[in-house]
Amino acid sequence: MFESVCPIEVQYGDCGPANIVLLPNVGRWMDTAAEQYFQRRGLPQWNRIDELPGVVGAPQLEVQIRFVEPATHADTLHMHTRVEEWRHKVFVMTHRVMRGATLICEARETRAFCAFDSEGRLRAQAIPPSLRLRCE
Amino acid sequence: MFESVCPIEVQYGDCGPANIVLLPNVGRWMDTAAEQYFQRRGLPQWNRIDELPGVVGAPQLEVQIRFVEPATHADTLHMHTRVEEWRHKVFVMTHRVMRGATLICEARETRAFCAFDSEGRLRAQAIPPSLRLRCE
Amino acid sequence: MFESVCPIEVQYGDCGPANIVLLPNVGRWMDTAAEQYFQRRGLPQWNRIDELPGVVGAPQLEVQIRFVEPATHADTLHMHTRVEEWRHKVFVMTHRVMRGATLICEARETRAFCAFDSEGRLRAQAIPPSLRLRCE
Amino acid sequence: MFESVCPIEVQYGDCGPANIVLLPNVGRWMDTAAEQYFQRRGLPQWNRIDELPGVVGAPQLEVQIRFVEPATHADTLHMHTRVEEWRHKVFVMTHRVMRGATLICEARETRAFCAFDSEGRLRAQAIPPSLRLRCE
Repeated sequence: MFESVCPIEVQYGDCGPANIVLLPNVGRWMDTAAEQYFQRRGLPQWNRIDELPGVVGAPQLEVQIRFVEPATHADTLHMHTRVEEWRHKVFVMTHRVMRGATLICEARETRAFCAFDSEGRLRAQAIPPSLRLRCE
Repeated sequence: MFESVCPIEVQYGDCGPANIVLLPNVGRWMDTAAEQYFQRRGLPQWNRIDELPGVVGAPQLEVQIRFVEPATHADTLHMHTRVEEWRHKVFVMTHRVMRGATLICEARETRAFCAFDSEGRLRAQAIPPSLRLRCE
Repeated sequence: MFESVCPIEVQYGDCGPANIVLLPNVGRWMDTAAEQYFQRRGLPQWNRIDELPGVVGAPQLEVQIRFVEPATHADTLHMHTRVEEWRHKVFVMTHRVMRGATLICEARETRAFCAFDSEGRLRAQAIPPSLRLRCE
Repeated sequence: MFESVCPIEVQYGDCGPANIVLLPNVGRWMDTAAEQYFQRRGLPQWNRIDELPGVVGAPQLEVQIRFVEPATHADTLHMHTRVEEWRHKVFVMTHRVMRGATLICEARETRAFCAFDSEGRLRAQAIPPSLRLRCE
């Protein structure tokens, strides 16, 4: 199973008054890691994938995050990202954030490639088998 | 069961290129709503609660978010926040984000009041019964 | 001269490890205050103003911020926002962030209502006199 | 004059509804670039510099940003950071954000190394000549 590893240097501004990383910043890292996963399989950004005309992004439908150890300013972390499961219209990604051998947090998210329909509603699109093949 | 309701005007900068709210901003709203819940029970900010000396905040240990409908720029939302469960050292909060009668997203998070111990490690503190009583 | 006043409760997550507000969050407040200024003159969000068809927002061309006193978690602030100058295609906004009678920071920014041209380039639009009149 | 160059991959979540980078994210990049500047001169994070005991960070006193061209999702940018001037208690940094040979934006900021005094007030500290020498 392909795994993308994304380095993260924890910045001063990623941390709150207790000098530990705040959840919204972990959320930003997850977006970055999700995009990089596809780019490392040779795909362009989400809104320029040929097999997915009209797609504007891959928003999250569900997210679970479990924090195990706090991370702090100037930590060097690595985010390990996989697609655990491909379904018809959604895919399940997992992220494991490590500081060396220590697990900092783990996350699981369900995303869908979405496009606007003719009434302006955002709709999940079927995932093309060719795209799935490039990622497996 | 006490419920705190927190109004949210979705800002331009809360939305990404698809003009829907990005997850990290929902994470910020959850932090804001969690604090307001306690303030509406007459408590000061987390690091100034008398019964919790040394506490620096109430970081999240686990978070689950489920997105049901997208929210967009200029939407008026309301976030309904409750404590569903008090345990010895953690409490479980739920947030329901509504646009009128429409559920936008729902979240569940486990938080602990934390202080640094003598070795600089962040430790969950026992929740004082008097604090719990003020919230119920 | 019309002035819009926007209350701000400084959140835990607005502050960094030194427990003072971080610049990017002041930047978010400026966006919020800029939008509210127009809404308090009876205008809808930037991308729905009748006189400005095709406009997608009012991005900043120049920003200056001067910090006078630090603001911290749980401070109650007020942001005082004005349009100091209307030019053909841009307007100059000022924001004064106050904690009671104490000036926390002041900012000055030049913004333009922008639309994409036929080649996909973002272009500043002339400001309709009727819109300017509603704000003065 | 030493210049630090910091690569930036513009993320989906850095952009707003017009698909251009929002100011608060440029503010985050400036913080990151400011820290990296010192780290590339062999210094640790701001709160661990030997010559600066008690310092909690290097907050901004003044910031000016001028946007020249919009940047968008998936752009590769480079931020060129210098210290233009060292004064007794403050230093002036400039950042030039480039996409290839195109200037995207330029910024100028005044920062001070700050520590809390005995009354809990944040105070700018004199800049040690040895630290200045390592950066020049």
